[in-house]
Amino acid sequence: MTDGLLSPVRAGTAAETATADEAWLRALLDAETALARAQERLGVLPPGAAEEVARAARAITDPAELAVRARGAGNPVVAIAADLRAAAPHAHHGSTSQDIVDTAAMLVASRTRALILADLDRTCAALADLAERHRTTPMAGRTLGQQAMPTTFGLKAAGWLLGCLQARRRLAAVALPVQLGGAAGTMAGYGDRALELLPLYAEETGLEEPVLPWHTVRTPVVELGAALAQAAGALGKIGTDVLLLAQSEVGEAAEPAAPGRGGSSAMPHKRNPVLATMIRSAALQVPAQASVLLAAAGGAAHERPAGEWHAEWQPLRDCLRLTGGAAATAAELTGGLEVFPDRMKENLDRLLATLGEHGADPGTGPAPALVDRALAAWRAEGGTAAS
Amino acid sequence: MTDGLLSPVRAGTAAETATADEAWLRALLDAETALARAQERLGVLPPGAAEEVARAARAITDPAELAVRARGAGNPVVAIAADLRAAAPHAHHGSTSQDIVDTAAMLVASRTRALILADLDRTCAALADLAERHRTTPMAGRTLGQQAMPTTFGLKAAGWLLGCLQARRRLAAVALPVQLGGAAGTMAGYGDRALELLPLYAEETGLEEPVLPWHTVRTPVVELGAALAQAAGALGKIGTDVLLLAQSEVGEAAEPAAPGRGGSSAMPHKRNPVLATMIRSAALQVPAQASVLLAAAGGAAHERPAGEWHAEWQPLRDCLRLTGGAAATAAELTGGLEVFPDRMKENLDRLLATLGEHGADPGTGPAPALVDRALAAWRAEGGTAAS
Amino acid sequence: MTDGLLSPVRAGTAAETATADEAWLRALLDAETALARAQERLGVLPPGAAEEVARAARAITDPAELAVRARGAGNPVVAIAADLRAAAPHAHHGSTSQDIVDTAAMLVASRTRALILADLDRTCAALADLAERHRTTPMAGRTLGQQAMPTTFGLKAAGWLLGCLQARRRLAAVALPVQLGGAAGTMAGYGDRALELLPLYAEETGLEEPVLPWHTVRTPVVELGAALAQAAGALGKIGTDVLLLAQSEVGEAAEPAAPGRGGSSAMPHKRNPVLATMIRSAALQVPAQASVLLAAAGGAAHERPAGEWHAEWQPLRDCLRLTGGAAATAAELTGGLEVFPDRMKENLDRLLATLGEHGADPGTGPAPALVDRALAAWRAEGGTAAS
Amino acid sequence: MTDGLLSPVRAGTAAETATADEAWLRALLDAETALARAQERLGVLPPGAAEEVARAARAITDPAELAVRARGAGNPVVAIAADLRAAAPHAHHGSTSQDIVDTAAMLVASRTRALILADLDRTCAALADLAERHRTTPMAGRTLGQQAMPTTFGLKAAGWLLGCLQARRRLAAVALPVQLGGAAGTMAGYGDRALELLPLYAEETGLEEPVLPWHTVRTPVVELGAALAQAAGALGKIGTDVLLLAQSEVGEAAEPAAPGRGGSSAMPHKRNPVLATMIRSAALQVPAQASVLLAAAGGAAHERPAGEWHAEWQPLRDCLRLTGGAAATAAELTGGLEVFPDRMKENLDRLLATLGEHGADPGTGPAPALVDRALAAWRAEGGTAAS
Repeated sequence: MTDGLLSPVRAGTAAETATADEAWLRALLDAETALARAQERLGVLPPGAAEEVARAARAITDPAELAVRARGAGNPVVAIAADLRAAAPHAHHGSTSQDIVDTAAMLVASRTRALILADLDRTCAALADLAERHRTTPMAGRTLGQQAMPTTFGLKAAGWLLGCLQARRRLAAVALPVQLGGAAGTMAGYGDRALELLPLYAEETGLEEPVLPWHTVRTPVVELGAALAQAAGALGKIGTDVLLLAQSEVGEAAEPAAPGRGGSSAMPHKRNPVLATMIRSAALQVPAQASVLLAAAGGAAHERPAGEWHAEWQPLRDCLRLTGGAAATAAELTGGLEVFPDRMKENLDRLLATLGEHGADPGTGPAPALVDRALAAWRAEGGTAAS
Repeated sequence: MTDGLLSPVRAGTAAETATADEAWLRALLDAETALARAQERLGVLPPGAAEEVARAARAITDPAELAVRARGAGNPVVAIAADLRAAAPHAHHGSTSQDIVDTAAMLVASRTRALILADLDRTCAALADLAERHRTTPMAGRTLGQQAMPTTFGLKAAGWLLGCLQARRRLAAVALPVQLGGAAGTMAGYGDRALELLPLYAEETGLEEPVLPWHTVRTPVVELGAALAQAAGALGKIGTDVLLLAQSEVGEAAEPAAPGRGGSSAMPHKRNPVLATMIRSAALQVPAQASVLLAAAGGAAHERPAGEWHAEWQPLRDCLRLTGGAAATAAELTGGLEVFPDRMKENLDRLLATLGEHGADPGTGPAPALVDRALAAWRAEGGTAAS
Repeated sequence: MTDGLLSPVRAGTAAETATADEAWLRALLDAETALARAQERLGVLPPGAAEEVARAARAITDPAELAVRARGAGNPVVAIAADLRAAAPHAHHGSTSQDIVDTAAMLVASRTRALILADLDRTCAALADLAERHRTTPMAGRTLGQQAMPTTFGLKAAGWLLGCLQARRRLAAVALPVQLGGAAGTMAGYGDRALELLPLYAEETGLEEPVLPWHTVRTPVVELGAALAQAAGALGKIGTDVLLLAQSEVGEAAEPAAPGRGGSSAMPHKRNPVLATMIRSAALQVPAQASVLLAAAGGAAHERPAGEWHAEWQPLRDCLRLTGGAAATAAELTGGLEVFPDRMKENLDRLLATLGEHGADPGTGPAPALVDRALAAWRAEGGTAAS
Repeated sequence: MTDGLLSPVRAGTAAETATADEAWLRALLDAETALARAQERLGVLPPGAAEEVARAARAITDPAELAVRARGAGNPVVAIAADLRAAAPHAHHGSTSQDIVDTAAMLVASRTRALILADLDRTCAALADLAERHRTTPMAGRTLGQQAMPTTFGLKAAGWLLGCLQARRRLAAVALPVQLGGAAGTMAGYGDRALELLPLYAEETGLEEPVLPWHTVRTPVVELGAALAQAAGALGKIGTDVLLLAQSEVGEAAEPAAPGRGGSSAMPHKRNPVLATMIRSAALQVPAQASVLLAAAGGAAHERPAGEWHAEWQPLRDCLRLTGGAAATAAELTGGLEVFPDRMKENLDRLLATLGEHGADPGTGPAPALVDRALAAWRAEGGTAAS
């Protein structure tokens, strides 16, 4: 249903479901319904109008049909509004397509963000556990692919933790506002009490109240894209390190085993780091998707651009579902990561011998104390041990 | 089925269908079947084996279920091969996931490219017609948004034509080879006669024979992505110009009218340039998708990378279906574009008056002769008038 | 000196100077000197050592020569450290190249950010003034290039203001920490009191103290890149609108006239919107540059990656100087923007006539009140009228 | 002079010099001079006029000063033309800024491409030699970071060779035409014999004759950017593999040793793969730079866009000099790469033992024959052994 065959990182995940066409359609209809509810509360619509819209909305369920009709106006809301109004004449009152699409995008983003934050929390808890358990587990630090100086696996895990924690903080801070501007962003179509409608609409949707209609002030989309790319990068870093640690010649870590996981169609002896691979596949895509969002903001002409707005939708969805898939996969990976301290020591011993020749082994110094700093930062933001 | 709600530019188009999960699944199974056929021809498999594989392949029809199972190996082929082998033990003989995925990708690309080339041909024919009809229709040339000097609408259309023609040429020239390397790209798994198998496999699939397995020499994917982005850009240029010509204050062109097209949910008086808008929405996305493909090539580690390969699939699909949607939309747009020479003259007269004050009107000079050059180039590549 | 010939948007600006090779070299040497100062304060180095380093640093002045020598180690610090130590044996004590490069990058970022924030402040003040003055100036709102409904120029300016204000807020909030990890990020090379050295180093540089060494936890670089792209987008939006308003056929605004500005080599009658053009040229580049930073974070292998780190430097500089140039140019543009209310009214009248036929003119509704909301938000963050 | 401190991959290389501001200025002046020569040959300018222009051009030597003056018009040619005309009144006759900038860009591209092709040739010759020498040298093939099946180092080198050969072919095929359109692309400003001037201008510059002025049909720039990104990717693949082979735990290859190369400021025992690192740093940047070029084409409004054109210049330069630096570095890397067959065998033996347990060692099969295919392809395109 969601073209997931080419995107295993998010196939079957909650983030995929939360961003599928069905979910977007639900969000579009929720935006219409919430608008009617807010307008009814304000007395702009008669009692019962909102319930009528809600009922009409429940009858609209076929995104594929609407997708094709969306070609008529360049967005799906004109068709949706027509269908709604046929059954509920007060639907879409004073509104414009962009109000509904943008509000729906924020609803989808809000719902998917909750899933991502939860998976980042699970990941952080697993990483905190790894950092604590391996606080002093020595291993070779590696720079430019070469063994460089000793470090501890705990410090490596603490770095992963900090990256995820900072990305989580950033993502959680992004404001997700309703859109309510009407045809040209003046709110004029919403009548004399438009400004009173704004907080009610925010309340009905659970989204924030913006300062202005943001039809062409794309801060929410830009900040969301950037924060999701940051999260994908923080997760990608874990995938990259696990991949390298799991190399046949390194052997210092392995992904959690599971029936059917990591198999090869040609090589029964292999155990592939597929979770790391999938996480990396997302981290390699999200920055480009985010760059579309960043670039669209600068071209957001006048009160609605012809293309830049429309170019946002699919990349925004991809940022959400790829990062969401990566977060779910990372929670699984970090929650069951196998660490092999003996092998770490073995690899490190070769390095220490070399360093010894140069009289240059400084030990791991404050690495354990640095782990404590990262754990403290995590706890200060509410981090608690994995259950 | 294809998450098209957020991508009207390709919703319901042939390119969308040709790149949907169902089409990819069919291509994956075609790749398996063609392999068995080639192996049977070579005598590696017993008579009847290929038909058995083909039969087993027809029973596999659920991409959504395979998508989720793809998480086990990071790609869908391990699950597909297992299902095939349960019914046809000779399936996937000597093969590896990447041989099947890459060959399937080339099959999807080949099939979708045919659609795109046809739509580019339709577009070129329409543009040639516009260029010829308006060979001498005067209008204001505009630079940096300002009226600059006179030109002709024919020359503008000739520029659009040339861009599409060059993009068509480039896209048609990209070599789309089979992939046949086996587990580590040596072809060893395919047995003693592996090198003889290669041309047979190419023949069975209709794809080209490569010099080497290209597991991590990603030339076909890179050249395809770049050519599709070039095509999207050539089409985007048309969309950009039409959008600007159709502005209320300019009024020199309008999109072909159609029932339900260009409507606004809030403004019944408007006629929006939705075709241009949708084309532009694609042109704004494809370069970023292509950049994922370009970047993945440089990180294609060893004999199969953990992530870079997997990151290609969805962006490649998006390059194909967005460009395909844009080409179909452009054929529609250019085939029915309304041009208003009177308005062009009216706008131009203001410019000519200003130029006259400066004694600086050079006329349109060789603009009509330039149109002829573009038409000749088009005809030289087989261009014929739209029927 | 700074390859500015191809980048007029930043040629000769303060941001260009602040990010030039000379400035980076100065920052690299400042990082070395500050380290010695902090180490001397801690008693790790003998009294006078830091002054010796500072003196040696002043003698290093040729970035071009160091650039070539940088090829030996892949970064310029190995050569710099060698030169410093020749004159000041205590230089670079316990350090590693990345500590110096990353700290220098944050110094350059911090210095350039101050310039950008100041130009964003000037721009915001000018926009606040425009919004206030034109709070009720009616004009046509335009969607998809078509006149849609009335709005006010004040509301358009308020939107520009809000975008810049939000970008300013985000950019100002990015934490810019020192880097102090030593060879493998454990800080071991800095000796027993390494953790005490950290706040002293932060103090000496004026940068923040990080939780951990961030050699491969690239949050500061990622957040900086994203915030700069957001700012470039907010400024680009202004450029896009001005370009469209200044079109010959629209004529509702013009760039501030200046001797020699907006000239054409071929057309003496033209007045090109060159400030908007230059701003847009930056807004079209920065998202791609930022995407390099976003992507590099996910590939930051182990304790130092071989390429991803090195790939950050030039894109980070480009994000800084392009956004900086755009901000300076926007301050100039918005500070002197000519607005033509009569022409706005003239264009609007045609729209109102059409709307009248449809009985659909809602007026500008709460547009002036929305202007007040944006101005209040600006003042709440310390915005004050342009002097 | 060229801001090379942050870009060691191209610091001091011939590609850097060929793309520096000085080189661009020279190309801009060459474009002006060649135009005068062609016009004089055609009789449009009086005898001696071209020599006068050439003399005036030689006196213009300060790109930094012109860079700042370029802010007046948004490009440097208005200032250059003014200076030229002061000394040579026939300079810039009938021309427009874009004719000169675009022609100069093609001159710079042509000159730099020659350098890149030469370095690709050197690289190919070195790779052919490696492939031939190690045609049967066994090593572990690795997929997803895991040892998978045996291959030969010769086949790995043959894959590198094929990627470079295909990139070379593509890059060499890109048409680099003069630009000659005048103010609005009609060539009207060049007078009655404009079409005759076109081939003469091509001849004088050594560039190709285009079908049409390509002010806003950006095929040459798009194809150039894509081909350079393809080349950077082919080179990046080599860097990625060398980096992984050179890992401490793998040890199968090492970069050519050179005094001062690969040193670390903190770790005297290390030998860093700096050439691979620098190549990878370029490969990570070029795709994003190329995406700016790809995207700009779709927004190339009317007869000259306000921003999209200006946004091309620096990314085009970066594509040229980063790829050029990477090619020069790759020639050095591949020309002296140390290969350790004993270590390869040692690592492979572990794999073979595992495969033996599974009865699954297929040997290297046709790997040597595949090497021969790649060598034949190389020779067919004129490849000859490194001298």
